[in-house]
Amino acid sequence: MNKIEHIGIAVKDLEVSNVLFEKLFGVPAYKSEEVESEGVMTSFFQNGPNKIELLAATNPESPIAKFLEKKGEGIHHIAFDVTDIIAEVERLKKEGFVVLNEKPKKGADNKLVVFLHPKSTNGVLVELCQEIKK
Amino acid sequence: MNKIEHIGIAVKDLEVSNVLFEKLFGVPAYKSEEVESEGVMTSFFQNGPNKIELLAATNPESPIAKFLEKKGEGIHHIAFDVTDIIAEVERLKKEGFVVLNEKPKKGADNKLVVFLHPKSTNGVLVELCQEIKK
Repeated sequence: MNKIEHIGIAVKDLEVSNVLFEKLFGVPAYKSEEVESEGVMTSFFQNGPNKIELLAATNPESPIAKFLEKKGEGIHHIAFDVTDIIAEVERLKKEGFVVLNEKPKKGADNKLVVFLHPKSTNGVLVELCQEIKK
Repeated sequence: MNKIEHIGIAVKDLEVSNVLFEKLFGVPAYKSEEVESEGVMTSFFQNGPNKIELLAATNPESPIAKFLEKKGEGIHHIAFDVTDIIAEVERLKKEGFVVLNEKPKKGADNKLVVFLHPKSTNGVLVELCQEIKK
């Protein structure tokens, strides 16, 4: 794991939160992107070597809709940048971590992503992400 | 704000979680430090330009004891590295953010820290931190 790639934050209203985080960082989101498979609309803020990803639900079945219902707005996950996601998943499985999707899936921001179950990581939803080479 | 300085994670048992996060990162915590004023024992893991801070309560009145009781283990706060904490607090107050302690206080890891109220930041407890020059 090379660094914190981004922090995912669940929000109710992306437009309202885009304004809020623009005030916090002093710079606007650099992009917005829908991930249909996850039922989310995202926006990204750059913060030095790291990013903040705001996540709003696009339908009631979205994991973000469920998260908001249960916990309200707040930090949803931490994503770590990895160089070789397949090797990293293998290593973590051997260490006893519970992998939510063994096969990396296409996430936002041109990444292959795998999630670890929060039950095996102190209540923290951990995402591994590897940039897709073009 | 220069980068995510660290992510604070509330844990029940620091020894157990130190082992867990050592497995996750493949490297052990590089230090452990008590912050008596906050009622916490901490340990720190380096992850590239970022850190993970594990936080365990040292008494029942600790904010971490209350957090664990209410929400269970998980992500507690995001800390951003700032160059001039006084100027940054002034800027954020003007933008409408609610500051929890206007006067920076001494935090863990040789930092001056100020917290923003989660009500003004989408449910996220935000810490600003500035390295104390020696």
